[in-house]
Amino acid sequence: MIRKSLLFFLISSLSLNAQKENGLNKQINKIYLEALTQGKSYDWLDHLTNQIGGRLSGSLNLKRAIKWAKEELEALPLDSVWLQSVMVPKWVRGTFEYANIESSPGNTINVNICALGGSIATPSVGIRANVVEVKHIDDLIKLGKEKIKDKIVFFNRPMQAELVNTFEAYAGGVDQRYSGAAEAAKYGAVAVIVRSLNFRLDDYPHTGVMSYGDLPIKKRIPAAAISTNHAELLSSMIALNPKLRFFIKQNCKNYPDVISHNVIAQIKGEVSPEKIILVGAHIDSWDLGDGAHDDGAGVVQSMEVLRLMSLKDFQPKNTIRVVLFANEENGLKGANTYSKSVKKDKEQHLLAIESDTGGFTPRGFSFDTKEKYLNKILSWKPYFEPYLIHLFERNGSGADVNLLKGDAMVLAGLKTDSQRYFIHHHSEMDTFDQINKRELELGAATMATLVYLTDQLGLE
Amino acid sequence: MIRKSLLFFLISSLSLNAQKENGLNKQINKIYLEALTQGKSYDWLDHLTNQIGGRLSGSLNLKRAIKWAKEELEALPLDSVWLQSVMVPKWVRGTFEYANIESSPGNTINVNICALGGSIATPSVGIRANVVEVKHIDDLIKLGKEKIKDKIVFFNRPMQAELVNTFEAYAGGVDQRYSGAAEAAKYGAVAVIVRSLNFRLDDYPHTGVMSYGDLPIKKRIPAAAISTNHAELLSSMIALNPKLRFFIKQNCKNYPDVISHNVIAQIKGEVSPEKIILVGAHIDSWDLGDGAHDDGAGVVQSMEVLRLMSLKDFQPKNTIRVVLFANEENGLKGANTYSKSVKKDKEQHLLAIESDTGGFTPRGFSFDTKEKYLNKILSWKPYFEPYLIHLFERNGSGADVNLLKGDAMVLAGLKTDSQRYFIHHHSEMDTFDQINKRELELGAATMATLVYLTDQLGLE
Repeated sequence: MIRKSLLFFLISSLSLNAQKENGLNKQINKIYLEALTQGKSYDWLDHLTNQIGGRLSGSLNLKRAIKWAKEELEALPLDSVWLQSVMVPKWVRGTFEYANIESSPGNTINVNICALGGSIATPSVGIRANVVEVKHIDDLIKLGKEKIKDKIVFFNRPMQAELVNTFEAYAGGVDQRYSGAAEAAKYGAVAVIVRSLNFRLDDYPHTGVMSYGDLPIKKRIPAAAISTNHAELLSSMIALNPKLRFFIKQNCKNYPDVISHNVIAQIKGEVSPEKIILVGAHIDSWDLGDGAHDDGAGVVQSMEVLRLMSLKDFQPKNTIRVVLFANEENGLKGANTYSKSVKKDKEQHLLAIESDTGGFTPRGFSFDTKEKYLNKILSWKPYFEPYLIHLFERNGSGADVNLLKGDAMVLAGLKTDSQRYFIHHHSEMDTFDQINKRELELGAATMATLVYLTDQLGLE
Repeated sequence: MIRKSLLFFLISSLSLNAQKENGLNKQINKIYLEALTQGKSYDWLDHLTNQIGGRLSGSLNLKRAIKWAKEELEALPLDSVWLQSVMVPKWVRGTFEYANIESSPGNTINVNICALGGSIATPSVGIRANVVEVKHIDDLIKLGKEKIKDKIVFFNRPMQAELVNTFEAYAGGVDQRYSGAAEAAKYGAVAVIVRSLNFRLDDYPHTGVMSYGDLPIKKRIPAAAISTNHAELLSSMIALNPKLRFFIKQNCKNYPDVISHNVIAQIKGEVSPEKIILVGAHIDSWDLGDGAHDDGAGVVQSMEVLRLMSLKDFQPKNTIRVVLFANEENGLKGANTYSKSVKKDKEQHLLAIESDTGGFTPRGFSFDTKEKYLNKILSWKPYFEPYLIHLFERNGSGADVNLLKGDAMVLAGLKTDSQRYFIHHHSEMDTFDQINKRELELGAATMATLVYLTDQLGLE
């Protein structure tokens, strides 16, 4: 009899498990169906990019975007929507930058540059100087002050095309942009020009944040990015004429910090309202394009996750919260403020996931968490397979949610097919027309699925 | 002593295995490095699409493409390059098609259509008739002859947006295009208009092959595709005015079959030259775009696989053969001829892999093979993971290599990220500028990796 009841117990629990799995599979199917046929993310992104546009920290456009996002979230059946005040840097590009290569007096070729975010201006008459080309910051030591003083340093190390993971190639090249000016200034350089972080040879300069570190204000020098085509041109011209001169003029400016806001909205959990599942993205962007991939896509996908979870089919057990962070691009001040408030209020986050790898087809996630939580999440892989989600990486999340390390059980990032990402990233080419509706919607559905599974199954 | 030597044997064989794996990993790394930094596929595709263009079976352009491919392959260090004669259909589009919707006499709106491949022309004065809109071929039975006779049947079933696998959605919609005219003709329809197989709402009609089946020539009616935007327009206008009339004029024509060729090239295996690993694609395309994704990408990727395998680093054990099939789009005559020659010559194919899902980021493969071979291939998954290749599907290959069923141990197809594919497929939007260099190169490297592993490790 014992055996029989054990068998019965086993059969019933197996069948209960199978029923549960089946139920979850059906719910996930509803998520994808809704996102792909009734989704709001694409129309939202159309408005955010085409009606608002680029939204650099401290700009009126970022204010407009924050107001718009708050209103759109207030129109959803959520429990609360609020703004969290954040002080953010204000850097403005000013009038268009201008540069040329002067191969001999009077013989000039115009080239495409843009100031790096945080850079100072040139004098109003511009800077004209000889150029010294380097591949690495380390090359500065080898060259020494003598060869660098009064010159423009041209950092020209391309992204490594052979790296399939494009973010790895980006990480391998970004030091030139971030620290190039601070380092070159120490050797007496008068300005720096940095090859744009773009695999493709094209005509668009790509901006991005730079830092002078602890360099005194008086020692700072202007920094600009040059398009990959013109980096190649400059390099080949230097090879023919090492004495050529480069002219650069830009009038960007740093202002004192101004007030901005994180946009926060949530559905209160029915069972454990004190436990929070956060889905987020950054609402600021660079100013050259309209910030469709970086990170308009993440903003509307996060809003869509909250919309999906607000549908009557779902009814989350835990609180589902969206945070649209201000100022990821040049300061992370939004994420900083949010993480401080989490610590102060002792808020408990189960999962904090960010979408900030462009609105391309989702491939999976990166996770930063303890082995036991990761193993739990890995056991969910079969739920994702029908939707062609296979990538479950370790040791990564997103720049904003990363500041919740220690405060959230799982940090995560949506990983997309990013082969095209650096064509657009921080450039004029980051525009709405480069977004595919289905790819955007699939990203939202994929994040919503992770959120839903975490909500329903827990992490313990 | 026995134990000790067993241990020694185990350790040495483990270490031999580890060495072998390590060696293969290094070789695969070379494949990707070469494809992503010195690859030829992108430049080849530039020529094939921009200098040659669309290459419909029977056209002079297909001849030009075949001549070009043969010459490019002859320039590589291969063992042989030859042409295999094939009789292919010749259907020509003629002058541009024209259509409009006449809501009342004199009130017309021009709409974008294109003749389906194989369709007959309209009379030279065109056809003007009322329209009956249906979603399924089955709807014809329900409507019956009375409601269909002398009308234009408008097949307007959209692709199912909720299917993540876009080829599944395509398969679910293609019957309207392929058999719609033959079926509607049986009920006395005078022409058919088919909604383009495109998820996106846009202005481009998408052609593709249709068939009249065994319908007598005298009963055949013209068939055309209409852009998705204009399908929506037509449908909404019919709802307002069921009596509206549609005008269509096209002068496409079927000619007798003409001679064409499969392009074949190979590197003879050093160990087992009688065993063949085939990598292929179709060199013909539709005529509206330049056939960059369908299937110029597959053509240049296949050529690149052969080029990679011809490098001194590799030296294949088995024969590596590329076949560029003529006439996949409207007849599969090239694949037919090739498979007959394989049977006749009793040629032994280990693997036959086709690339025909667009030049997008590769995700993996589909396989049609016996369980034991599949299991062998599945054991190679770890070799692919660093390159973000995770998809190993069952039950699929490619339209051309599918005809080698029974003659090849493994049939396979390269699977790409196909969310954008049906924007381009068979339309004016299938052009070189829609190809990303890295994505194209990754596809070639991924096929080359499967080819190399099959060559080195065998399938048994």
